Amino acid sequence: MTHLVLALDFGGTKLSAALFDRAEHHDGRPRRLDLRREWTAAGADADSEWSTMLRLARGMLAGRAPAAVGVSFGGPVDHDAGLVRLSHHVRGWENIPLRDRLMAEFDAPAVVDNDANVAALGEWRFGAGRGVDDLLYITVSTGVGGGWVLGGRPWRGHDGMAGEIGHTVVDPAGPVCLCGKRGCVERLASGPFMAADYEEAKGRKEDGEAMTGRDMAEAAASGDELAQAFLLRGAWALGAAIGNAANLANPQRFILGGGVTKSGEAWWVEVRRAARATALPEVRFDIVPAELGDDAPLWGAVALTDL
Amino acid sequence: MTHLVLALDFGGTKLSAALFDRAEHHDGRPRRLDLRREWTAAGADADSEWSTMLRLARGMLAGRAPAAVGVSFGGPVDHDAGLVRLSHHVRGWENIPLRDRLMAEFDAPAVVDNDANVAALGEWRFGAGRGVDDLLYITVSTGVGGGWVLGGRPWRGHDGMAGEIGHTVVDPAGPVCLCGKRGCVERLASGPFMAADYEEAKGRKEDGEAMTGRDMAEAAASGDELAQAFLLRGAWALGAAIGNAANLANPQRFILGGGVTKSGEAWWVEVRRAARATALPEVRFDIVPAELGDDAPLWGAVALTDL
Repeated sequence: MTHLVLALDFGGTKLSAALFDRAEHHDGRPRRLDLRREWTAAGADADSEWSTMLRLARGMLAGRAPAAVGVSFGGPVDHDAGLVRLSHHVRGWENIPLRDRLMAEFDAPAVVDNDANVAALGEWRFGAGRGVDDLLYITVSTGVGGGWVLGGRPWRGHDGMAGEIGHTVVDPAGPVCLCGKRGCVERLASGPFMAADYEEAKGRKEDGEAMTGRDMAEAAASGDELAQAFLLRGAWALGAAIGNAANLANPQRFILGGGVTKSGEAWWVEVRRAARATALPEVRFDIVPAELGDDAPLWGAVALTDL
Repeated sequence: MTHLVLALDFGGTKLSAALFDRAEHHDGRPRRLDLRREWTAAGADADSEWSTMLRLARGMLAGRAPAAVGVSFGGPVDHDAGLVRLSHHVRGWENIPLRDRLMAEFDAPAVVDNDANVAALGEWRFGAGRGVDDLLYITVSTGVGGGWVLGGRPWRGHDGMAGEIGHTVVDPAGPVCLCGKRGCVERLASGPFMAADYEEAKGRKEDGEAMTGRDMAEAAASGDELAQAFLLRGAWALGAAIGNAANLANPQRFILGGGVTKSGEAWWVEVRRAARATALPEVRFDIVPAELGDDAPLWGAVALTDL
């Protein structure tokens, strides 16, 4: 009887594979035996990503069979059918039966879910959500997405689409999002959109490069009032959406991860203020930083094999 | 072994008690044996309401013992503790252990929940939500409230506060609500607020009486453009909140009840349009009228005894 769990993370820019021993624990987490990463090559497609991932996994397994395979995929997934619907970054992933392929390859049960849901599971079982039955995990990065745990179980929604807090509207008079609506959280609070708005107001960087979310956060930290204003508008948008979500679903905790959450204390203060101002006084919750960082999908993939 | 279920509805303006036989079904619902109603008297308090409800119930039971008692209460309830927190209409209900009182009185298990949650259960088991596992019931009346069923179970939230869609914000530049926030759904879409806005723009009625939601809906139906504008603004607000809720939690169905839903086809068209425009294309749902009308809390009280 093997205790090996294979965790795979098909990310937007890199592929990660890790091997865990779920019979051995360390700090309340399964022991991680190995971790291998590879950047996605330019021109990669689904076939080349599959081959790369198999190579990483086989290298770690060295002939051993895993007891289970858990997968985080960076795009829409039909969890029940184990089907990848598509990737927003890499072509060829349309309607790929990833679960069945993995089961055939490794002769073990496999579970596949999208990265936001998987990261939520990771934080719930091994990170900032330990001991909490009802939470929304939100990643605030190039996009804004989320995953629910409600009543001590993942809540994926009727069509597996739950958690799309990034496309809730907080300001119907706001700027137009890629999705076509005005004033989505993602349009106001994601790194690239905040940076683009800042660049449009401020002008290009001196080196001619495009402004990034990190550039803007650094400018805000060093006192640039324009950068501060765009950052705080994003924090307000996220906080307002959190307050609305608290009134609607009343989770105990919101866990925030992703690059934008590293934007400094003023950002956190405004997120919490706007959320509290939007929620009814009787609706209680806290808002805390994620603990697992970039590894949340891998830890979540382990959790996924053991629900 | 008795099959009698006693269903009690402590409403804002009236008390209702009904007796059901859960061993006999009619159109897929338990057979209703009796129904008694009494308007809340001016100056009523918790003690007088309790006495009135006991009289109604004992009159129907005629000495028989019920197998279970289900209760809908028009105000915040701690479901797990069986405690009424308060009534917004009648004084003296602060922290009343209603469940334990009923269990002592009728020597049977009792369950208490707030009216929005109970109506949601009623529609789910016996009305417009039959066969649907994931739904949000919304009442649009003097206030706007809601109750969830998710994964085939009631979802009350971590503190029993879930479903407060009426106090989600859809327009941060909107008018100020009683709760202190701008642009809540309840401020824009509830009958009394729409009527007050219409009256302020149009002036008092000819008979000097205050404008009601029904007056405004009738004016809209007979072509008054100002009344139509306020009604459609309310429909937009509700629809936008439904679209946000769909993105967040991805239920299969939204069920709308309450007096404002009788405002005519144009209202429904705008609710559905705004909801569809706010939700992501992949997020599917339908929006349907409630089927049980004013009796939803009584049917829900029956469902509450059998979860």
